[in-house]
Formats: sequence, C-alpha cells, structure tokens
Amino acid sequence: MTIKLGLLGFGTVASGIPFLLEENGEKITAAAKRQIEIAKVLVKDDEEKNRLLAAGHDYHFVTSIDEIVSDDSIDIVVELMGRIEPAKTFITKALEAGKHVVSANKDLIASHGKELISLAQEKQLAFYYEAAVAGGIPILRTLANSLTSDKITRILGVLNGTSNFMLTKMVDEGWSYEDALKTAQELGYAESDPTNDVEGIDAAYKAVILSQFGFGMTICLEDVTHKGISTISTDDVAVAQQLGYVIKLIVSIEETPSGLFAEVSPSFVPKSHPLASVNGVMNAVFVESIGIGQSMYYGPGAGQKPTATSVVADIVRIARRLNDATVGKAFNEFTRETTIADLSDVKSRYYFAIETPDKKGQLLRLAEIFNAENISFEQVLQHKANGETARVVIVTHEMSKTALANVTAKLADVVEFKVLNSFKVLGE
Amino acid sequence: MTIKLGLLGFGTVASGIPFLLEENGEKITAAAKRQIEIAKVLVKDDEEKNRLLAAGHDYHFVTSIDEIVSDDSIDIVVELMGRIEPAKTFITKALEAGKHVVSANKDLIASHGKELISLAQEKQLAFYYEAAVAGGIPILRTLANSLTSDKITRILGVLNGTSNFMLTKMVDEGWSYEDALKTAQELGYAESDPTNDVEGIDAAYKAVILSQFGFGMTICLEDVTHKGISTISTDDVAVAQQLGYVIKLIVSIEETPSGLFAEVSPSFVPKSHPLASVNGVMNAVFVESIGIGQSMYYGPGAGQKPTATSVVADIVRIARRLNDATVGKAFNEFTRETTIADLSDVKSRYYFAIETPDKKGQLLRLAEIFNAENISFEQVLQHKANGETARVVIVTHEMSKTALANVTAKLADVVEFKVLNSFKVLGE
Repeated sequence: MTIKLGLLGFGTVASGIPFLLEENGEKITAAAKRQIEIAKVLVKDDEEKNRLLAAGHDYHFVTSIDEIVSDDSIDIVVELMGRIEPAKTFITKALEAGKHVVSANKDLIASHGKELISLAQEKQLAFYYEAAVAGGIPILRTLANSLTSDKITRILGVLNGTSNFMLTKMVDEGWSYEDALKTAQELGYAESDPTNDVEGIDAAYKAVILSQFGFGMTICLEDVTHKGISTISTDDVAVAQQLGYVIKLIVSIEETPSGLFAEVSPSFVPKSHPLASVNGVMNAVFVESIGIGQSMYYGPGAGQKPTATSVVADIVRIARRLNDATVGKAFNEFTRETTIADLSDVKSRYYFAIETPDKKGQLLRLAEIFNAENISFEQVLQHKANGETARVVIVTHEMSKTALANVTAKLADVVEFKVLNSFKVLGE
Repeated sequence: MTIKLGLLGFGTVASGIPFLLEENGEKITAAAKRQIEIAKVLVKDDEEKNRLLAAGHDYHFVTSIDEIVSDDSIDIVVELMGRIEPAKTFITKALEAGKHVVSANKDLIASHGKELISLAQEKQLAFYYEAAVAGGIPILRTLANSLTSDKITRILGVLNGTSNFMLTKMVDEGWSYEDALKTAQELGYAESDPTNDVEGIDAAYKAVILSQFGFGMTICLEDVTHKGISTISTDDVAVAQQLGYVIKLIVSIEETPSGLFAEVSPSFVPKSHPLASVNGVMNAVFVESIGIGQSMYYGPGAGQKPTATSVVADIVRIARRLNDATVGKAFNEFTRETTIADLSDVKSRYYFAIETPDKKGQLLRLAEIFNAENISFEQVLQHKANGETARVVIVTHEMSKTALANVTAKLADVVEFKVLNSFKVLGE
C-alpha cells in the first residue's frame, strides 16, 4: 500500500524530496516495501500556490492545514516550514489527527520537543527529526541505534555551517570577521540578521537535541552556555596558528560527576584533532565514549539534498515500522534523570589574550592573580609591545569554570589589565 | 526475560563484552529491555579453560560447541574466533540449532557470508556482524538504516589500521617501510607474517562486505583488485608531500555505468580531503552519494573495547527485535543484480614514477607513449638526475584502467624505462 505524505511548506528542502523519490525510487521503494507519494502540499496562500503551479510544480497544493489533517489517506505529515509557529500548532494538529510526523525543525524540537514527543507517544505515533541536527549526517539515529551499547562521556561538534564557513575563511585566508560575514551573506549562508548563527544560538538548539540522544537528558536552551564568534580577532587567529591550533565554534556536551554541561564556544582545536579539518559549511559530531573511544560523523550540515535525504530516511523508517506493526516507539528511547553540572566540575584548558601596560612586572602581577585561583600556565607569550601596551597570551593548564569566573572577575578589577578574549583549548 | 549468550572464543575482543555489560549495564539493559548474560564460553581445550579460571575469569567454560548449540537456554551465539574454520562450522551449527548469531569475522563473512546469510534467512534468525568492518565504526548499520534513502556512488575507506599506522609513520616521520613494519610488529599491530594487512587483503575482505551494504551487490574477494603498501618508497612519500598529497592505502568501491568496481590500492589523497587526516590505527569510511553528497564515518578500526561495542550493539538489536517479534530480517536488505564494471569505465588520475636514462629526449619519448593511449599529463616533475639515470614523476589527467594497462605494458616494452611505481590520485 502506498504511503501518502502531506508536506507542510515547499521551500528548498521540500523540493529535494521529489528529487530523491525520483532518482532513487527503486531503492527507497524496496526499503520501505511501499510506494511513497506526495499527496498534498501546504503553502501559505493562493499567491504562492499559483506561483508554484506556474513554475511547473505539479502537486495538489492546499492553503489550509485542515485539508491535510482531515485527509484520511495521508499517513505522514512532513513539516519543513521552520520557526516555532505555526509549525508547532500544525504538528500538534497532525499528531492529534493520528498522523505520523517527520520534521527538520531544530528550533521547535529544542524548545517544545518534550510536549510534542509526549503527544506522539500518547497517540502511539512516530515523530522523527533526523534532519534537525547536522542536516545530512545521520547522527541521531546512529546515537539511538548503534551507540546504545556505549556510554558517551563527551560530544564535541562543529554544528553551524555559517560560522564554520566564516572561521575557515578567517583561519585559512586571514579574513576579518566583518569580511567573512559579508561574503557569507552574499553566498546566502548567513541571513541579514546573522545573530542565531554567529552567536552560537543555532548550535545551542542542536546541543539540546544531542543531549537527549547522547546522554538521555532533557535540558533547555537556557542550560546551554553560548558564546559566538563575533569577538574573534585576527590576532586570536594568528596566535592559535602559532601555537598549533585552529579556532572553531565548538558545541561541547559532557557528563561530569555532578551532571551534564553543555556549551557553545569558540575553542582552540589542536591541528591534529579530526575536528580541525572540518572546513567550510561542513559539520561534524565527535563522540568520546568508554567503548569506541573516539568516533566522528562528518557531512553537510544543511542544504536541499542532504536535509531531504535525512527526511526521507525518517519516512522509510516509518514505513518499515508500519510494515512490522511496531510504529509508535520514541525516536530516542534513552532517558535518565536530568542533572546539570556544578561549574566546579567542568574543566578545560583556557586561552587568554590580555592587554597590559608595557612596563616591568606586569607578567608577575598576572601570574599572581592566576596563582591565587590555583591556575597554572602551560604556555605564555608576550608580544606586540608598542611602548604603551603589551599583549600577553596565556594558555592555562586545566581549570574549572568556577576558577574561570573568579579569575575573570579579578582581572576585571585591575584597571590596567584588559582581557581581550578567553577561549577554551581542547586536548588532542 | 534474560538474553543468554554463548561466546565462541575468549580472546581480546570477547573480554571487552563483560566490560561493557558491567560499565554500561543500565543503559544496555534499558535499551534491550532485558538483562544480558554470558551463559557459556567455548574455549579450545582444558588447558585454556584452566588458564582462564586460574586468571580469575568466572565463566562457565566449555570445550565442545555442542554444549552451546544444544543448550536451549542460549539465545545468541557470539563468534569471536576469527579465521574460516572452525568458525564456519560452529556458526552453521548454531544457526541450525535456532540460535541467533553475532560475528566479528570479516574473513568468514567476505568468503562464505552468502551461504550463512541464506541459512539465517531460511531459519528466520538474526545474523549480524557490525564489528566485521571498521571495528568500532557503526558503518554497516548506518548504511543499512540511515542511507536507505540515498544512492551511493562511491565508497572510499581507510580500513586497515596496521598499514595506516605504518604509512602515517612513513609520511609524518619519514620512516622507511621496513622500519615502520618492524615497529608495527613490536607494538602488536602487525603479525609476524604481515601479508594480509600490508598487501591489502584484509581491506579487500571489508570491500566485499561494504559492496553489499552500500551497493546491494555480492562480489567475491577475487573481484577486488588489491595492491599493498610494500612497494611504497620514501621517494614516493616525498613526491606526494611536494605535490600536496599524502599516501594512504585506500579501499575504493564505485558504481560505473557497466557495474561495480572495487579495489584496494595505495593512493595519493589531497591534503585537504577528510581521509588525509585519518592517521595511525584509526579507520574511516568516506561515502559519496547523490543525496548527502559527502559524508565520513571515523573511528578505531580494531581493538578490544571498540569491537566489543559493535558486537554488543548487535546483541541489543537482536533483543529489541525479539521484543518486537520482528527478528529474522537480513542485516542488509538491499540487494540488486551484481554486475562487475568494464575496466574502460573505471577512471582515475594516476601518479607514475619512472626511471629513465639521463639523456636528451626521454621526456618526449615518454610523452609519445602516453599520448598514444590518449593520456594527458596534469603535472610532470623531473628530478634526481645523477648523470646516469633521471627520475620522472607524472600525474596524469583522468584515464581508464584499460589505458593504464596499455600504457604500463608499452612502458614495460621499453628497456630503458623502468616504472618504479604507479598509484591512483584522488580528487578533492
């Protein structure tokens, strides 16, 4: 029996679905053991409908969600609209009407996933969203299936293509942040308001979803500390290079003795680390675990065909489960009590770039301040003295977030010291 | 109800299983919705049994396969003996006795997988072997589940940890092949007879299995052209470096218009390619497809805990399927008619290192020979002239395997030209 889809939205990703159903129909049909057919497509209004029809898109376009949820022939609703509303209302309606749902909407799932997942569970319906994290990389299903046997201790990710594209240009070609942003906007990688991408908010949404699949814990966006790339200077990039690192915007989720800690922050990544060579708009998820040790999953983080591939994989999965009469299991079945880490348990090395007056004894004063917090130095560079100010670069040994907050506050109290930047430094 | 395991063999990998069941028991039990217990362990003889008991291993050791296959309480037989026999006979007995089987035995599955898979299908039993390819990387299940929606065009892999460790030493530290082999043997990465690893045979086994999962085709070991790393010289390594490449032993499986082509060969990999930074004993599978485009799966290719993690993932999968009463599906359900590529359809760029007499006109003669086969040059370097012989390095534009065979034969006919080496050159 044919599986009938109702698509919500017909933007870039949605139009990748017919591409795959056509170009790879034989394999998809064999895997699903059913034909898959786009029955109806919801668009905003008659204007959009007429424009799409005129452009040669031969679908049954509708302008009301009710025409989809009340259609008994439709099995799966595929939400590709993005943003919170009306997507949330439409998905809720679809689930209430007994439709399985596939979505690529990370904002929605990170913010309201819990209630939608509960509703799907209650109705014994599938609610899958592989495309919501790292577009083309099948990371969620891999965590849910293959890594069930493993205990994950940390997930590191390059999960925002826009900022990674910009950082790649800044690192490889010495561009400034402003030039990189301008080009990203011209190429359509960055929106006119780039805040979500460059400030790490988009990546934080993904951290929320990865926390569920990797650690069984449901955290909120507010639990994810985030810091973006807009303060990274060409000096920071140059120092990183000199010390054997590249700067990346890294999602980090780790389990400490007291609980989970998730953050998005620019980080020094050793050049020999697999994440260091994830360039341009590519994404990667690097998993540390007690069994496998280190593994990495690399691919495009967005784009029409990669995202559509993940969406169709979800559709095939639902078809298979319908055939087996096992539909209705949660996408992620791994759940534990959620506990948030005490900041004194969260440890890392840090890079500091500090501007000081160019006179004797400043390094000693700095060393005293760090020493008072029990922070020791791994590397110190002093350069760019111009007779008035000097720039001191410090890479510390491992220290806690608490120590970081303390030392940052103390440094702020000294008028002559200006902390230009401080970033995490990853190990090999 | 508890799932009871019968382990065949208690070597390195097998002892990783109790580690995982203990350290990650809660998650594994929750995922399997059952306890998992090692009921019996088959060892070779009483001597091994007594040695293991004396070493504190508290299992029910048996020395006859019949004690396992005739034990009705055992659900899953886990084969970790390696080699073809007696593993093949024991797995056959287990399947015939109605046991599900998990194996990590690539040699066996590549050579006799077809008949064992048929037997498992006929008996409606699970026969899973995630650990057989790239140990800790969950590549087979990812191909079978997540990539069903995608059409794969080529798989490239670094799949032999031993030779990759050796090549990493040769590339990064300028070691000779002999020194690298000696160290690999001392570290236990290479066996005293290293043929299977260094000649690409081990990687060819993995190519056979990947061909099934990635392309739905069942090829034989004989269908996989293989060439090892023993002929790679320090000159080759240096030239690769100079031209912006690193040399890796690459498994390549591609679909051409006439059919599938699989080979294992030393290849020049551009430094910017994700496979170039897969170093040491790590493995990676790089997938090119019409949907995702490029994705890569990276992790340890062997080792106790990584391999055991894949084995336990298979066990959990069987438990889940038993709960759902859907056990008995083939691990890989993607099958198509197997067709082998015509060599004229298999195209690549190539590197040639050729020794010529150090006198005028040799490059012209070489150019004529290549030109006669319609092969054009992308890069030519002439160096190391010592008054008697010169060394010419050529990187060609794309050419077919047929042209490669022809030009190689013609060069062999010219007494003065000695082809020192010729390797594939991958694109970005």
